[in-house]
Amino acid sequence: MRPSGRTASQIRPVSITRNFTAHAEGSVLVEFGDTKVICTASVTEGVPRFMKGKGEGWITAEYGMLPRSTHTRCDREAARGKQGGRSLEIQRLIGRSLRAAVDLKILGENTITLDCDVIQADGGTRTASITGACVALVDALTYMRSKGILKANPLKHMIAAVSVGIYKGEAISDLEYIEDSAAETDMNVVMTETGKLIEVQGTAEGEPFSFEEMSEMLELAKHGLREIIDIQKAALA
Amino acid sequence: MRPSGRTASQIRPVSITRNFTAHAEGSVLVEFGDTKVICTASVTEGVPRFMKGKGEGWITAEYGMLPRSTHTRCDREAARGKQGGRSLEIQRLIGRSLRAAVDLKILGENTITLDCDVIQADGGTRTASITGACVALVDALTYMRSKGILKANPLKHMIAAVSVGIYKGEAISDLEYIEDSAAETDMNVVMTETGKLIEVQGTAEGEPFSFEEMSEMLELAKHGLREIIDIQKAALA
Amino acid sequence: MRPSGRTASQIRPVSITRNFTAHAEGSVLVEFGDTKVICTASVTEGVPRFMKGKGEGWITAEYGMLPRSTHTRCDREAARGKQGGRSLEIQRLIGRSLRAAVDLKILGENTITLDCDVIQADGGTRTASITGACVALVDALTYMRSKGILKANPLKHMIAAVSVGIYKGEAISDLEYIEDSAAETDMNVVMTETGKLIEVQGTAEGEPFSFEEMSEMLELAKHGLREIIDIQKAALA
Amino acid sequence: MRPSGRTASQIRPVSITRNFTAHAEGSVLVEFGDTKVICTASVTEGVPRFMKGKGEGWITAEYGMLPRSTHTRCDREAARGKQGGRSLEIQRLIGRSLRAAVDLKILGENTITLDCDVIQADGGTRTASITGACVALVDALTYMRSKGILKANPLKHMIAAVSVGIYKGEAISDLEYIEDSAAETDMNVVMTETGKLIEVQGTAEGEPFSFEEMSEMLELAKHGLREIIDIQKAALA
Amino acid sequence: MRPSGRTASQIRPVSITRNFTAHAEGSVLVEFGDTKVICTASVTEGVPRFMKGKGEGWITAEYGMLPRSTHTRCDREAARGKQGGRSLEIQRLIGRSLRAAVDLKILGENTITLDCDVIQADGGTRTASITGACVALVDALTYMRSKGILKANPLKHMIAAVSVGIYKGEAISDLEYIEDSAAETDMNVVMTETGKLIEVQGTAEGEPFSFEEMSEMLELAKHGLREIIDIQKAALA
Amino acid sequence: MRPSGRTASQIRPVSITRNFTAHAEGSVLVEFGDTKVICTASVTEGVPRFMKGKGEGWITAEYGMLPRSTHTRCDREAARGKQGGRSLEIQRLIGRSLRAAVDLKILGENTITLDCDVIQADGGTRTASITGACVALVDALTYMRSKGILKANPLKHMIAAVSVGIYKGEAISDLEYIEDSAAETDMNVVMTETGKLIEVQGTAEGEPFSFEEMSEMLELAKHGLREIIDIQKAALA
Repeated sequence: MRPSGRTASQIRPVSITRNFTAHAEGSVLVEFGDTKVICTASVTEGVPRFMKGKGEGWITAEYGMLPRSTHTRCDREAARGKQGGRSLEIQRLIGRSLRAAVDLKILGENTITLDCDVIQADGGTRTASITGACVALVDALTYMRSKGILKANPLKHMIAAVSVGIYKGEAISDLEYIEDSAAETDMNVVMTETGKLIEVQGTAEGEPFSFEEMSEMLELAKHGLREIIDIQKAALA
Repeated sequence: MRPSGRTASQIRPVSITRNFTAHAEGSVLVEFGDTKVICTASVTEGVPRFMKGKGEGWITAEYGMLPRSTHTRCDREAARGKQGGRSLEIQRLIGRSLRAAVDLKILGENTITLDCDVIQADGGTRTASITGACVALVDALTYMRSKGILKANPLKHMIAAVSVGIYKGEAISDLEYIEDSAAETDMNVVMTETGKLIEVQGTAEGEPFSFEEMSEMLELAKHGLREIIDIQKAALA
Repeated sequence: MRPSGRTASQIRPVSITRNFTAHAEGSVLVEFGDTKVICTASVTEGVPRFMKGKGEGWITAEYGMLPRSTHTRCDREAARGKQGGRSLEIQRLIGRSLRAAVDLKILGENTITLDCDVIQADGGTRTASITGACVALVDALTYMRSKGILKANPLKHMIAAVSVGIYKGEAISDLEYIEDSAAETDMNVVMTETGKLIEVQGTAEGEPFSFEEMSEMLELAKHGLREIIDIQKAALA
Repeated sequence: MRPSGRTASQIRPVSITRNFTAHAEGSVLVEFGDTKVICTASVTEGVPRFMKGKGEGWITAEYGMLPRSTHTRCDREAARGKQGGRSLEIQRLIGRSLRAAVDLKILGENTITLDCDVIQADGGTRTASITGACVALVDALTYMRSKGILKANPLKHMIAAVSVGIYKGEAISDLEYIEDSAAETDMNVVMTETGKLIEVQGTAEGEPFSFEEMSEMLELAKHGLREIIDIQKAALA
Repeated sequence: MRPSGRTASQIRPVSITRNFTAHAEGSVLVEFGDTKVICTASVTEGVPRFMKGKGEGWITAEYGMLPRSTHTRCDREAARGKQGGRSLEIQRLIGRSLRAAVDLKILGENTITLDCDVIQADGGTRTASITGACVALVDALTYMRSKGILKANPLKHMIAAVSVGIYKGEAISDLEYIEDSAAETDMNVVMTETGKLIEVQGTAEGEPFSFEEMSEMLELAKHGLREIIDIQKAALA
Repeated sequence: MRPSGRTASQIRPVSITRNFTAHAEGSVLVEFGDTKVICTASVTEGVPRFMKGKGEGWITAEYGMLPRSTHTRCDREAARGKQGGRSLEIQRLIGRSLRAAVDLKILGENTITLDCDVIQADGGTRTASITGACVALVDALTYMRSKGILKANPLKHMIAAVSVGIYKGEAISDLEYIEDSAAETDMNVVMTETGKLIEVQGTAEGEPFSFEEMSEMLELAKHGLREIIDIQKAALA
């Protein structure tokens, strides 16, 4: 049923390349099939003004797409003069998700910025971004410990994300672009390695979905995310 | 356990005042307890450029807060020169949700803009906005039929929204500000009058939530939304 | 002669509702006939940078219209990315007028921001805003005294505003939209309760006006403003 | 009493240099004492979108100050990314005033843009701008007639502007910077050569002003504007 | 003398990977040592407004750096709300250079957009961008011919670019970051495969340079560019 | 061969008027034929944030064109909401060039801002700006010494700029608009009074240029700049 011949629960090959670029404290190329995102983690001393004086750190994210990462060229947001609503929504999701992975008190008054830049898009760029950013974050935390900036490990648990959806009436996992653009429902799920939920965002693109379909999608997500978290761990081993 | 003395599943008093202002084709003041939002529906001929020539209509939404709708004054977005990420995220959600309530083909090449302006905020402004905007939309559609702009009713089903969450370890419904700001998890649910889902957005603010808590929250939402949809229908009767 | 049947000097019913919303230190709904504006006064400690170190306070204003406060929907300024020239001009006028009502030295290094948001427009929104903002300001000053922030009352005099104009060759008071859009001349007058002028802004929309017409309009304004100031005082009693 | 030794009703030397720059259809350097403004009138075929199809023309204005036209350097508005409220207010005033001088029907579907750029500021830049722009406009209309673009003269009457104010308790005319910054009241008056009013904008900077002071200021303005209009006519002779 | 041990005239290893991403009509990863830039060429029908009706095509470029392509993270221009002066200057240079490589009449009313996004920066990003963009452009032109969009080849000649400079008093070729930041003079040269010049941009960073040094740098550039053009041709073979 | 009848190496009459406006520490009207630019130098204490604590000064420049300095009116950049790429490129060039004329250590923690505003354009506005700004800078430095702000003269050498180009196949000097718009190559050269180069920016507008033509243009520039520097010195004498 799926254009790629995958089974409903089958995710695409996921590949994680660490140290992809030279300068960042964490730098990962994450690939979910043909979706490719560069995720870097940058460490800076200090926190934004609204966090000052709490003795806690901050984690934030920015997301962008290269103009020709897509089938037809999309506008360069820097040239248009602002980030679109979709980009803002995605980077808020990435930032929120990664903050939930870290104990900000142990991080101390340091900021980690996660930049997720899509160089090739084929569906699932936000979930790939979260998955890759988590690995970049772990590398940055390791760097901070090696430099004596941190005395303990602030990581509470690995997190990863996957998209699931209802496509031709059936729940499927890790939608590629051709499925995504035809899906009745699209849902992004962020989960911890301990099997708990960080974010669930389900949207009916066409027809509303039932509470039963909701459950099926969650089940698929849980299954796929276990695989993805194993791949993250292997990459970090 | 709840500051207001409400039971876990009890929603706040919901009030819907139609024809709240004079000029709009639909104009509703919606109140969920102390949260008050003016929702107007404006009808214009034609559709945005990206929809032209499809013979379909368009529904879009914009959301804002009066600067002093909140406990401490927030910046006026017009003065700052751009809408914040939160506003964009919310108005995208409102627009998407209402589009899912309407058959755009029957709407024809007309646009309905839903403006949701919060005049007093006490938690749940986005779900109140969706709930009120749906009633304003129905009034605008009635207006269009009365003017002969529409030959059939494009409404597929009423929709409404409520927030649910995990507060002090327990699932509760329709969080007010004081609960919202302390909740471990916050989830917004948009449902049709036929009991199907349009949007589910759950976020762990502090601790991750379990699949069981997810189910409990969904159950509470379903229950609360049935009440809210009854109130919408009574207001429209 | 007037569409409403009013006499030339007759102002519309003016209504002032205090404590209209919950959070602001002063919150007023002001109505001049069908024109309705929410005016809030927000108190914050400190002053803008250019006022620092003078031992004086600051009063500023912001003005906006809900997109569908008007007959046809106007753009949301936050979405367009800037306030239009008309909004800036009006909020500068409101701020200037209210500053003239207060002794900034007695106010001390505190800022009061007056937000005037039009929820329904039928002519005279700027004069209604000034009139309502003055009442909200008085409530905020009372709040500040009750909290011990102020030791003396910085209010020098109440102020109010009304529009006058030349309509079909005759001077009239408090123009509603239908008159305003056809008037030859439009003039806004801000006056103190002691009968002195704060601002006079007269504009020939079509034909120039004579010095005699100027005098007639000023006379009408003086008369109308005495009534309006009485209504303010009654509301505050 | 006045720093310059001028009498209360005495205006500064006013000088008008036509053809100041080469490319514009009208180009004037106007000087009120040490205030110097370049005013150009640019003719373009067609009108802005909101005027299309009415068979009428349009006149608009833009105003700016060179960054070092003032005692201390002010920001370049182009670099800051927007025009300030003061500039917008002034250019709206200039445009409105000049539109009132012209029969837009006779102008036909043509646009004249008046650019007023202050190269040296010493008080009264907006009134100097209006005065100079009117002469540039006349030159542009003459050009249009000579090119056969216009068959009749759309000019209804010359206009000019002057500032008046209350300074040390006395009404004075044509305030220079040192007076302006200390004045209790500042008023700008735009008048036609036929002695009728186009705009009156009076503002209490410190103390409110009485109706009598209002009359005195208007009288001074009328007197000064007769002189200024004579100077315009001499320049055009 | 050089940190890398290179001779004065020795360029870094240059590598050109075609078809680096999937969607663009031309997609190249260009590497000059540790400087890595993704260059894509996107073909669209039609031309910008200012070119319409001339029967000619258009070539334009946009340039950006991933925030962590640099040693310390630089701001994301999309988030700051505008492209900096440096980016604009560079993309204008890239666009101008590539337009000089193509006969716009033969291109017909089509637009090619060259996006150059730096993923890792080590000096010479603008010259690497031009060099890579030329190869992406050739691939896009080949695509257009294969699709029948073009009947003839609009390429007039290959172009390439290199930086040269004065470092520790001596002319050197293809500066890496550590040299660039210490160089007295920095010069970028764009040359055709026929040995003619398209752009020369020399800047004294510290001390002015002599006409003799100018000649030496041009000589080095000519030599380096011959090598680079050979590498372009080999990549395209 | 040249429209003006000038010989290939002949520059236009250059005129420099000091103290052109009243307020700036240096104020120059520079004219290259019909190109007229007002250049002011403004002195402020302190330096921008990125320069703080180095004990060095800063020199920066801003450039603009009055909307009707050109044959057809160009947009006012302040109204469009941003400076165009061309303006940014030019002001970066002016700032860089003037910084190269000054010993920033001797300048101390002071900033000089050079504003170059074109009031009439006929080609070569950027080179006229640099030439005039250098004289304004010298006046500002003299002012600073007279006020005791500087103890020594930070000027290392005068600088000046001229444009050269290839027009109808021949190298010519100081192009006016009609030549500039038809030139095959356009090159701007900034030189010190000691005959060394600060900036060389050559661009093939149509056909690429040879290394020989490059040399010819540099030779013409050197010759013209000697004359221009003599005129600067005479103006300052």
